[in-house]
Amino acid sequence: MILITGASSGLGAALAKQYVSDNENVIITGRDPSKLCKVSKGLSAKIEALSVDLADAEQVSTMFDSIPRPDMVVHCAGSGYFGPLELQNPNQIRNLIDNNLLTTIHLLQELVQRYRDKPTQVVIIMSTAAQTAKAGESTYCAVKWGVKGLVESVRLELKGEKMKLIGVYPGGMATEFWQTSGKQLDTSSFMSAEEAAKMIKNALQSTSNGYISDIVVNRM
Amino acid sequence: MILITGASSGLGAALAKQYVSDNENVIITGRDPSKLCKVSKGLSAKIEALSVDLADAEQVSTMFDSIPRPDMVVHCAGSGYFGPLELQNPNQIRNLIDNNLLTTIHLLQELVQRYRDKPTQVVIIMSTAAQTAKAGESTYCAVKWGVKGLVESVRLELKGEKMKLIGVYPGGMATEFWQTSGKQLDTSSFMSAEEAAKMIKNALQSTSNGYISDIVVNRM
Amino acid sequence: MILITGASSGLGAALAKQYVSDNENVIITGRDPSKLCKVSKGLSAKIEALSVDLADAEQVSTMFDSIPRPDMVVHCAGSGYFGPLELQNPNQIRNLIDNNLLTTIHLLQELVQRYRDKPTQVVIIMSTAAQTAKAGESTYCAVKWGVKGLVESVRLELKGEKMKLIGVYPGGMATEFWQTSGKQLDTSSFMSAEEAAKMIKNALQSTSNGYISDIVVNRM
Amino acid sequence: MILITGASSGLGAALAKQYVSDNENVIITGRDPSKLCKVSKGLSAKIEALSVDLADAEQVSTMFDSIPRPDMVVHCAGSGYFGPLELQNPNQIRNLIDNNLLTTIHLLQELVQRYRDKPTQVVIIMSTAAQTAKAGESTYCAVKWGVKGLVESVRLELKGEKMKLIGVYPGGMATEFWQTSGKQLDTSSFMSAEEAAKMIKNALQSTSNGYISDIVVNRM
Repeated sequence: MILITGASSGLGAALAKQYVSDNENVIITGRDPSKLCKVSKGLSAKIEALSVDLADAEQVSTMFDSIPRPDMVVHCAGSGYFGPLELQNPNQIRNLIDNNLLTTIHLLQELVQRYRDKPTQVVIIMSTAAQTAKAGESTYCAVKWGVKGLVESVRLELKGEKMKLIGVYPGGMATEFWQTSGKQLDTSSFMSAEEAAKMIKNALQSTSNGYISDIVVNRM
Repeated sequence: MILITGASSGLGAALAKQYVSDNENVIITGRDPSKLCKVSKGLSAKIEALSVDLADAEQVSTMFDSIPRPDMVVHCAGSGYFGPLELQNPNQIRNLIDNNLLTTIHLLQELVQRYRDKPTQVVIIMSTAAQTAKAGESTYCAVKWGVKGLVESVRLELKGEKMKLIGVYPGGMATEFWQTSGKQLDTSSFMSAEEAAKMIKNALQSTSNGYISDIVVNRM
Repeated sequence: MILITGASSGLGAALAKQYVSDNENVIITGRDPSKLCKVSKGLSAKIEALSVDLADAEQVSTMFDSIPRPDMVVHCAGSGYFGPLELQNPNQIRNLIDNNLLTTIHLLQELVQRYRDKPTQVVIIMSTAAQTAKAGESTYCAVKWGVKGLVESVRLELKGEKMKLIGVYPGGMATEFWQTSGKQLDTSSFMSAEEAAKMIKNALQSTSNGYISDIVVNRM
Repeated sequence: MILITGASSGLGAALAKQYVSDNENVIITGRDPSKLCKVSKGLSAKIEALSVDLADAEQVSTMFDSIPRPDMVVHCAGSGYFGPLELQNPNQIRNLIDNNLLTTIHLLQELVQRYRDKPTQVVIIMSTAAQTAKAGESTYCAVKWGVKGLVESVRLELKGEKMKLIGVYPGGMATEFWQTSGKQLDTSSFMSAEEAAKMIKNALQSTSNGYISDIVVNRM
């Protein structure tokens, strides 16, 4: 089973559709049940949708109690918030931290507690903003660098275990992410979520002795 | 005037004492008024203590309304929380994020809003954990990497401005930090807060055309 | 046409075989004609072997004069040399620099001069040693960090061009690389060159708007 | 005794003058005897000049045979070479590698062989180009990233030893470095070598339990 978080739109939704059309069992999560419903509607019976707020540790734990062990987790949940630091709003900064950093901490904590000795691929979708500093994206870079610091440290804690963390760093995609983030952008030459999903899915390779552990996806 | 946050103990308190003995005007902040009082007691009249929770944006704003423009800010506020991810407590993780990442966002936001065009040195005390991943310190690395991503991005937003951000990355010091973090350590060969404070203070050099922008302090 | 350097053994040879069996036109290069011959022998007529020393700028230029424009270049040429710094031999250090850093500079220089405005994928095979420091691998890390600094800078020079640089960072593979590097290792659990080649080939995805720009391959 | 390499001009010469006026015993090295002579002339008897090409391993070894054990080494030797990759000259690229990467390898190798267990501070002057990629500086970044990879790896080999490596990363200074590098620049607002030398010298602090291990110096 493949668990995809943040799958109510964008890359997560695109990945869900592609894995379902590969005939995989897929469970998708998001905070908005009606959006999730739109994603799963029309797809095969092999997709299930769960409404969960991953920023709430208890909801994450309850979710894992209710589903079988995933073979792969693709953590796409996250949100953007942009603009010069001096114009940012404290409440939205708090949401940004919760949606990106806290969700990932809770998710990884549950996964490590439950399945560290099982062959589980945990794919963490970050952003090129996790690898570089950007003017106008200071708090977004902060939470994405934070997620990267978490992932790299948990990797060290998982040394020798069967659970593997895979870091994915996509550049900008043409999704509704931008509208909700408050940033005005011409995204006409950006990758679509479907393009990025296809490349990432194909790049997630492994063999008995090795695996692709990190992937950066950039715009042309 | 020099504003020192997180000055109720450890490196912040040591820096406060040393700047006061250099005859500088110093304002120290912390969350615990009695601890702050212990630090300032016995020092010259040139030190003032303010009880502020920097994780609360409004308190940060109110504080800057009540004090003159600082020539230098040394942001030492922060806390540690350690252990394997699977044993960490969600409430303490939340505190860790608030004490380290959120405080720095609020402080930098106020400083940039008010004084970006003034010659202000803003010294952000991070940790070597902001530069490297560490097993047993996953959430601590997460928040410190987050602060670094913030600082590097805000630097880009401040390009050409007179305000300068200075990053300081100390390794482990023998302070009460460790007791409150839940980590058992023999710190007998660690730097004392006084040693680290002295080195950092001396290393914070600038001339009319340049300045030391980043400093790493390590144990022998 | 796909040009593969350093293809007389290891990852380069494995990639050559796999691209040939995909029915691609492949040109392989190496310094040892007899080794190259062994690789191409028995493969289809679609492979051609050129004996070139990429550390010699003139030979690189002459080679590109004699072949058509490649659609993809996979630069696998390189060698290892390990051990504590104090035991290393100056001549072998010189060879290490020539085989890894100088070859890549010459290759990139010719490619950029000739084909920067053509849709050319230039895949630079580095190593996880380009991303992290390692005791016992100081000069190897030096040359690999050097190649990474080169690649990241040339990417900036190629902004907006059709030529794209792709960084690949494999961990240790079970190849004859280790015997020639002087390092004794049990490589029985390492990836084979064939495993790594297959994963990398499949991960090298692109669409009209985006591409996988960086790939890390690790051992399980 | 303080050994300063690359001291015939720029930062190295400025550091030599300042350490001599602190009454330290100083040995300076460079490749051009007449330039070295100009630096030492007029200074106290406490400075000695040695003409050495550090890119030649044997000359480095011979030099250390002829001088007492240094308490501190400041490695300033190096050269610049700039411009888009496609316009660079293979011979000058070779010189760039030799002057920056090879010199540092040879120097560190001798120091580690001879004095790893002695309290020796080895200060490696790199550049902000060792920390970031820059268009128009691809080969310069390559060699500086290479030096950083070397330094970080040798640090791991020196764990627990008394010899300490200190990394210094200066931004652009107004020195004759630029004229010899072929880059046209208005350096009127750059730090002078004297300003940078003073800041670096003051920042090189240590106590019995700790030391400043890395320093970045930037332009205002």
